[in-house]
Amino acid sequence: MEAGTEGANLKVSMSTRQFAFQGELGAFSHAAALKLLGAEVRPLACPSFKEVFQALKTGRANWAVVPIENTLHGSVHENYDHLLDYDFVISGETSIRISHQLIAMPGMKFSRIRRALSHPVALNQCKRFFEENKKIEAVPFYDTAGSVKALTDGTLRDTAAIASETAATIYGGVILRRNIEDIRENFTRFFLMTKQPTRMRSAARPRKTSVVFSTANTPGSLFRAISCFALRDLNLTKIESRPLRGKPWEYLFYVDFLGSLDEKKTQNALANLKECTQFVKLLGSYTPTP
Amino acid sequence: MEAGTEGANLKVSMSTRQFAFQGELGAFSHAAALKLLGAEVRPLACPSFKEVFQALKTGRANWAVVPIENTLHGSVHENYDHLLDYDFVISGETSIRISHQLIAMPGMKFSRIRRALSHPVALNQCKRFFEENKKIEAVPFYDTAGSVKALTDGTLRDTAAIASETAATIYGGVILRRNIEDIRENFTRFFLMTKQPTRMRSAARPRKTSVVFSTANTPGSLFRAISCFALRDLNLTKIESRPLRGKPWEYLFYVDFLGSLDEKKTQNALANLKECTQFVKLLGSYTPTP
Repeated sequence: MEAGTEGANLKVSMSTRQFAFQGELGAFSHAAALKLLGAEVRPLACPSFKEVFQALKTGRANWAVVPIENTLHGSVHENYDHLLDYDFVISGETSIRISHQLIAMPGMKFSRIRRALSHPVALNQCKRFFEENKKIEAVPFYDTAGSVKALTDGTLRDTAAIASETAATIYGGVILRRNIEDIRENFTRFFLMTKQPTRMRSAARPRKTSVVFSTANTPGSLFRAISCFALRDLNLTKIESRPLRGKPWEYLFYVDFLGSLDEKKTQNALANLKECTQFVKLLGSYTPTP
Repeated sequence: MEAGTEGANLKVSMSTRQFAFQGELGAFSHAAALKLLGAEVRPLACPSFKEVFQALKTGRANWAVVPIENTLHGSVHENYDHLLDYDFVISGETSIRISHQLIAMPGMKFSRIRRALSHPVALNQCKRFFEENKKIEAVPFYDTAGSVKALTDGTLRDTAAIASETAATIYGGVILRRNIEDIRENFTRFFLMTKQPTRMRSAARPRKTSVVFSTANTPGSLFRAISCFALRDLNLTKIESRPLRGKPWEYLFYVDFLGSLDEKKTQNALANLKECTQFVKLLGSYTPTP
């Protein structure tokens, strides 16, 4: 399903360029994509992460934007697995703060609200709000942005939704209470995926590189792999282990480090990594969007 | 809730010694506990992992048995987080193959079955079985072992359940089709937790040690931490990164290595690790049960 609402602002030449993301219009992934790509490209909402990757594969989308980790919940393992299975390139990265807004349709007063719809994870992140507002019942819904969409037909009159500011804007909602989440240090990091290496307009040169590798199950094998970076003063910003399917207790390691494929020392580190591992796949070299 | 069915076999002196696990009697965690502790101790079934840890904390249970990783799905992050929050000790480890059995009550014929109940994850791991037996509908249920329990009152006559062999034994079920899972390389690793360091009967000396640590976000900090093990030829069997709550993009590392706290080189490695990290917690030194 495509967004019809934003089409009017697009130039004709841009009209076929779209990004795939998981969730309804206004989902946090949609907000991340706006930060990464601007408002001139069209959103393609997909029901699952797999369909996001498929949309890029089949050419229905030019970009895919997927969450990769959250500061409270950790990595989104399904997407780490898809990074390995699809031959795509990480061309960008950004992170956004997950802040939850209490949203209602225009004209609605806070005092009349008796129910707030949202995804169970979001409801769970706003426990204090519900403790302080006992007349409002938390009602689980399939999606955060979808809960705002559900208000738009006007049949749920004493009901609000909890979702992003982007969702409020898209569905014409009004924010009645801002940032009602319990913990403010809640960030999600997103990757921008493309089929071919793509340099973003804003990027002077890539600053970060991601690889995935597996090592032999012998003493010191991970140490040797990591030494390829340490010996060149390349700072690791993330290491994630995932089980190797069909090989119990063997692992893949996903590593992000501060280094550019344009630099000789990054190229040397990757050549060195190939020497001392069983398998290496370069996932991309990109510039984070602040 | 406690098991009444096994009480008759217990000596009086053992009757108050019990282990906590998550799920219904006959869950895979229950099967792992039988492997770790034998049949003489009593099971205490808990609805959540948190309640398992609480049962050990309050003294209702003498042991807790929890899954920590699965070869297909990766780590059980909730339990990694509990390892840090509770001051318990890992006193044992085992892994079991997750094999799914089609179970019915005695007298039931395979040809009459029209529905199979189980946890959605288990149903999803038996896709081929359902493709080859199209007359049998997969019906999601809250728990694998609980689905066998649901058959015991006899009201569901054309229904089977998918669960472990242990569940079949406990609820008096008959296995109609064995090992119907799609992928056989499906293992789950479990930790045995105690309040105080406990040497298992069978163990000559501990062979494996687990620690959790955090490093400064500076180049080479993880490299230096891992070198503490590599310089002493201590083989890492697992490294897992988890976000540090309230400190976006900083991580805790959980490491398992082949080494015993009885050995000088393990003691030296841990002393060395304290020098070059911000925080270290020893989780236990134990012998895996094959």
